[in-house]
Amino acid sequence: MRLLQDRASELGERHGVSFRVTGIASRRLGWIANAGGLDWGRLTRHPVALPDVWRTGLSAPHSDVRSWLAAAHADVLFEATSLNLESGQPAIDHIRAALEHGAHAITANKGPILHAYRELRDLAAKRGSRFLFESTVMDGVPIFSLFDQLPAIHLQGFHGILNSTTNVILGEMENGLSFDAALRKAQGLGVAETDASHDIDGWDAAVKTAALVTVRMDVPIRLDQIEREGIRDLTPSAVRNAKRDGWPFKLVCRAQRTAIGVEASVRPEKVLSTQPMARISGTSSYICFETDIFPGLAITEENPGLYATAYGMLADFWRAAVK
Amino acid sequence: MRLLQDRASELGERHGVSFRVTGIASRRLGWIANAGGLDWGRLTRHPVALPDVWRTGLSAPHSDVRSWLAAAHADVLFEATSLNLESGQPAIDHIRAALEHGAHAITANKGPILHAYRELRDLAAKRGSRFLFESTVMDGVPIFSLFDQLPAIHLQGFHGILNSTTNVILGEMENGLSFDAALRKAQGLGVAETDASHDIDGWDAAVKTAALVTVRMDVPIRLDQIEREGIRDLTPSAVRNAKRDGWPFKLVCRAQRTAIGVEASVRPEKVLSTQPMARISGTSSYICFETDIFPGLAITEENPGLYATAYGMLADFWRAAVK
Repeated sequence: MRLLQDRASELGERHGVSFRVTGIASRRLGWIANAGGLDWGRLTRHPVALPDVWRTGLSAPHSDVRSWLAAAHADVLFEATSLNLESGQPAIDHIRAALEHGAHAITANKGPILHAYRELRDLAAKRGSRFLFESTVMDGVPIFSLFDQLPAIHLQGFHGILNSTTNVILGEMENGLSFDAALRKAQGLGVAETDASHDIDGWDAAVKTAALVTVRMDVPIRLDQIEREGIRDLTPSAVRNAKRDGWPFKLVCRAQRTAIGVEASVRPEKVLSTQPMARISGTSSYICFETDIFPGLAITEENPGLYATAYGMLADFWRAAVK
Repeated sequence: MRLLQDRASELGERHGVSFRVTGIASRRLGWIANAGGLDWGRLTRHPVALPDVWRTGLSAPHSDVRSWLAAAHADVLFEATSLNLESGQPAIDHIRAALEHGAHAITANKGPILHAYRELRDLAAKRGSRFLFESTVMDGVPIFSLFDQLPAIHLQGFHGILNSTTNVILGEMENGLSFDAALRKAQGLGVAETDASHDIDGWDAAVKTAALVTVRMDVPIRLDQIEREGIRDLTPSAVRNAKRDGWPFKLVCRAQRTAIGVEASVRPEKVLSTQPMARISGTSSYICFETDIFPGLAITEENPGLYATAYGMLADFWRAAVK
């Protein structure tokens, strides 16, 4: 939201897109809406329950996403609940409701892609709305939009480094830290969460791999169909020696089309130091697409800035608004 | 054209785009048109002058682009004359005529961007047509289209390796060949032309740099405003030693926004071997965009296939047809 406000005048002047916030939903605020516009800055900054005086102009409190969308006269939904690996909920319900309401749906949440991509894609097409999720992989780098610009191309597979936490930890272990110290350092840098097992055990990388396979290779794949191994069992000396010998360990995502579908994996690999992946360090990420036209079309995101993920949602917003 | 025919059914079925060739112009054929469709395969394969019998159904011979466009009922022009560094002609006239006729114009020729970008861009916008040129830089890699997907982003500069001939020659010199032997090898591989001075002296890289500055940084720049130095003066021993010492020579393109405009250069640089540019070998190319949102957003094209440039024109065709 901060980025959206920061770029609001540019979106207006250069791209002819203006907007107002007409609904906010959060655990703290509940479902609040005002089709005339909300002062979202004031609402979201306020640390405690909403004073009654600010409720002026709000529609009656809502208890579900559908009546809230209707009260807000929503044209676009930004879905930002956290990832539910098992079911993709409640994000799927929110997005489905928005699309059925006739709004565009934008999310940075990979759950809906994992569990309901085709349904939501087809629903959006039927309603003439957009279902957009550019922020789900490599922050806001236009990985998905890129292929929207490439007609009649055939994606055979891809490989890359898509998880920052493990990449930072491996780098710190190469520098001599133990796994635990490296993890604490990554947490101190704000890269890793308090419970980092989602990253360390390869789940995050596997979910991103699944999203790319599902969307870009058009083959729905379940998480349990992706061979997955995290970095927990790598010893500091193995990591240091591999680096010294010119084959640093990286947590590598791979997918490859086969005769019967797609084979995909996430696992630590020793990468020859002359290969591009070997020099992806810290929070940088990398993906190389293997296509019939371009045998290797690679995108590197070097040290993403603070707003890289938010930017993906802003760009999605613009895509929905102008197309 | 071969690629376009190869992907015709896919463009039709997946993207709803069908087409027929209604005009061809070349030195050998002259300006020929048939609004009902031409058998372009037969016309372009035939080694000598066109037999009269094949002229059945053709409109009267044309002597200029305007009457030819009209006779062909052209919706899209593919402009493929060769680069004229000094004036950009006759490509500019052809493209201008097509846009004024109401057709989209697609080119792989950098001359019109260098000499008439703003005029042609504005003319296309006025006529509701597209002026597209994705093949001009990095074959068909969607360098230009990428930024069409990135609203409200600020490009501060870029650096990269954009000329294959010099990159192949430098690689061969690292392997011990003399400059002349390396050049002959590049010519034997079909990478370098008989007169390779356009590449060797940095003109090709400078023109590509100018195109990117003009279009993506929105600052028109003349070739003589780009500091330019080719690879002709590098000795084999300098090239070999630089590689041995971990600082291989590369012909590097750079542009950077300044307080008063853009500074740009093309020159041989020693690139630290841990940097991505150091490992761009052979016919691969690389560009890294420096933006406010993504400090480094890099694209690598590894060993482009035979159809990489043609694909850029095919993708432009699709962009023009569906948008």
